Amino acid sequence: MANLERIKSVARRVAKAREAGNHLVVVVSAMAGETDRLLALAREACPEPSERETDVLVSTGEQVTSALLAMSLQAMGCEAVSLLGHQVRIFTDSNYSTARIQTVDRSRLDKELAEGKIVVVAGFQGIDENGNITTLGRGGSDLTAVAIAAVLGADLCEIYTDVEGVYTTDPGICPEARKIARISYDEMLEMASLGAKVLQTRSVEFAKKYSVPIHVRSSFSEEEGTMVVQEERDMERVVVSGITYRTDEGKITIKGVRDVPGVAAKIFGPLADANIVVDMIIQDVSDDGLTNVTFTVPKGDMVKALKIVKKVAKELEARGVSSDEDIAKVSIVGVGMRSHSGVAAKMFSSLAQEGINIQMISTSEIKISCVIQAKYKELAIRVLHKAFGLGEEDIRQAPPLVGRGARRRRAR
Amino acid sequence: MANLERIKSVARRVAKAREAGNHLVVVVSAMAGETDRLLALAREACPEPSERETDVLVSTGEQVTSALLAMSLQAMGCEAVSLLGHQVRIFTDSNYSTARIQTVDRSRLDKELAEGKIVVVAGFQGIDENGNITTLGRGGSDLTAVAIAAVLGADLCEIYTDVEGVYTTDPGICPEARKIARISYDEMLEMASLGAKVLQTRSVEFAKKYSVPIHVRSSFSEEEGTMVVQEERDMERVVVSGITYRTDEGKITIKGVRDVPGVAAKIFGPLADANIVVDMIIQDVSDDGLTNVTFTVPKGDMVKALKIVKKVAKELEARGVSSDEDIAKVSIVGVGMRSHSGVAAKMFSSLAQEGINIQMISTSEIKISCVIQAKYKELAIRVLHKAFGLGEEDIRQAPPLVGRGARRRRAR
Repeated sequence: MANLERIKSVARRVAKAREAGNHLVVVVSAMAGETDRLLALAREACPEPSERETDVLVSTGEQVTSALLAMSLQAMGCEAVSLLGHQVRIFTDSNYSTARIQTVDRSRLDKELAEGKIVVVAGFQGIDENGNITTLGRGGSDLTAVAIAAVLGADLCEIYTDVEGVYTTDPGICPEARKIARISYDEMLEMASLGAKVLQTRSVEFAKKYSVPIHVRSSFSEEEGTMVVQEERDMERVVVSGITYRTDEGKITIKGVRDVPGVAAKIFGPLADANIVVDMIIQDVSDDGLTNVTFTVPKGDMVKALKIVKKVAKELEARGVSSDEDIAKVSIVGVGMRSHSGVAAKMFSSLAQEGINIQMISTSEIKISCVIQAKYKELAIRVLHKAFGLGEEDIRQAPPLVGRGARRRRAR
Repeated sequence: MANLERIKSVARRVAKAREAGNHLVVVVSAMAGETDRLLALAREACPEPSERETDVLVSTGEQVTSALLAMSLQAMGCEAVSLLGHQVRIFTDSNYSTARIQTVDRSRLDKELAEGKIVVVAGFQGIDENGNITTLGRGGSDLTAVAIAAVLGADLCEIYTDVEGVYTTDPGICPEARKIARISYDEMLEMASLGAKVLQTRSVEFAKKYSVPIHVRSSFSEEEGTMVVQEERDMERVVVSGITYRTDEGKITIKGVRDVPGVAAKIFGPLADANIVVDMIIQDVSDDGLTNVTFTVPKGDMVKALKIVKKVAKELEARGVSSDEDIAKVSIVGVGMRSHSGVAAKMFSSLAQEGINIQMISTSEIKISCVIQAKYKELAIRVLHKAFGLGEEDIRQAPPLVGRGARRRRAR
């Protein structure tokens, strides 16, 4: 039982943290492969299973882990109790499979903690106002952990994952990538939405809103990971904190559209109605009253989007529609950009020196994203990592951590 | 997926009953082997897993089945919704693993039924007053079904099992055994406690208390099974309804005890203190102020019981203690005994004619049990089955059934 072995190893780690005097709430996810096994059963039962029943089904994965972790802790002589979403009273809206947490009741948690117990909470699940089981979507167990840490006013929310922390970029692409010791919520938010997979955007948003310090670290080592915290004065000393990429979007261009008011609404209205999320939008400078509009959509929605856009292009009497899935979006993120000038220029010239053409650009206060040909992705990342000095010794060090913490452990 | 195939076949049957105009609540148990798989995980996590956490763990089995059956029904175009113990609000005491149902709330059931939905309830589980998950012990899903039928005032509680109904005796031992069309709660209670495995005593007690008619039938055929109902006038025309046996008890004898007041208390007090359930007790007629006391206990408790009894025997200065596990208890059951004389005599003489010695006898108003040597068990059953005419055409026929029913289906 590789899985049960993992749970036992988590239990040993939790027991150690308890011995160190911490009050602990541990949030667990399902065992490896369990959610997929249950989803496969659902599809066999029904080609399009209802989301309500799917949530009833998949939430058993976390329920099983929570009971097994509580038992493993008891086997080590720790007092432990498992609690499910309906027992904690984690209330969500009724959007099955992607529910949003509305309130978390702390009374049962407080009661069990006051009795000296380690509380093991089944992550990823809640209930709506009618007591129906809901699940929180991807990264849901992280979100449960952050929400519980927030309501308890915990000193710390530790998120255990299969990587060592948040890196300056993907170490698989850039061997010089280094673990970031401290990063601000805003930077983490940009990095998560721009492709860093270690934390989901929603968890970081929640942590920011309630000022919950997150420690992202590895389940497999004792090494310090990355602290995600409020922005600190020091942080601006670093211009760029990290480099991310996404290759899951494609690009659509409508050529030769008349540049008159209302055109954008005519193009993007129907896409929004079809629930297609448009990311970057570029409109060329008008030439003879005609312009080109280019935007990116998820690759999974390309076929649907093209169908809609071709219809709109005809109505607008545009010259034509083209598309390109062979693109990558590379982004640099850092709160230091606010106080440092020339960051964009440095990014563009670094890419130009390697002959990498920039197709689209989008910026915010703390990030710059460039769309380039997919084949240059790795090269671009390595060049930018070097250009912004990310391989050098990190100046942001994490202070040692003590005190009560709501910790989340992922049992894999 | 043999298991999912079973769930789908149950769904087809439920859909057909719905089409016939019935309002249905379907109570499900776990898929074959699932509870054992989960219990094995529990034992791996902890040598003596807490009963609270074990209940959290094993209750996922019924939760999975309930969601999958609701989905399968939806795939057939039926509106269906799954409900767990905490959603129905099936309240129990806090005796984990063997909890007793205290109240069942009908409001959520009524609401879903009023909306025309088929309600699929996860059997075997409830919650205590603090919202902790409890399970009901062996046959728990049957009990859930009976309890829900009771609170809803259902016309009928169908219990689907892997046999065709309740038989006059074990067809594996006596090929002439016949399915009983109608049987009273009291007879069913005696038969269940005397070894018939098709229904648990607690479910029958509950059904009797709330006058819930039960139809025990096969999941694998459309045949009528056995109706378990209030006693009817007709039933007394049959002297003996069924013959059961148990071989899970052993016999202990204390020889040469002084026959003075208080001896029984000295023997059975310590056994009760050790939670050993004593079934039959026989005290020989006193001879010279000395007597022998013989009683039966579960074979699993024999070693513990003998240790206690030997100590007591020494204190009482008895002549000795002997034990015998090589016994069987064969019982005849029937409400007709009340109005027919000579039933016991017929039983004893039938056994005697085959040279079967009776070691112990115990009787109630509607049953007679005899302890005999284990090797005569099959012979005794066949002889009694013939002697009481159980192989003949059954005179109790079940009428056709219509109307709203709370049905329980076992998904295997």
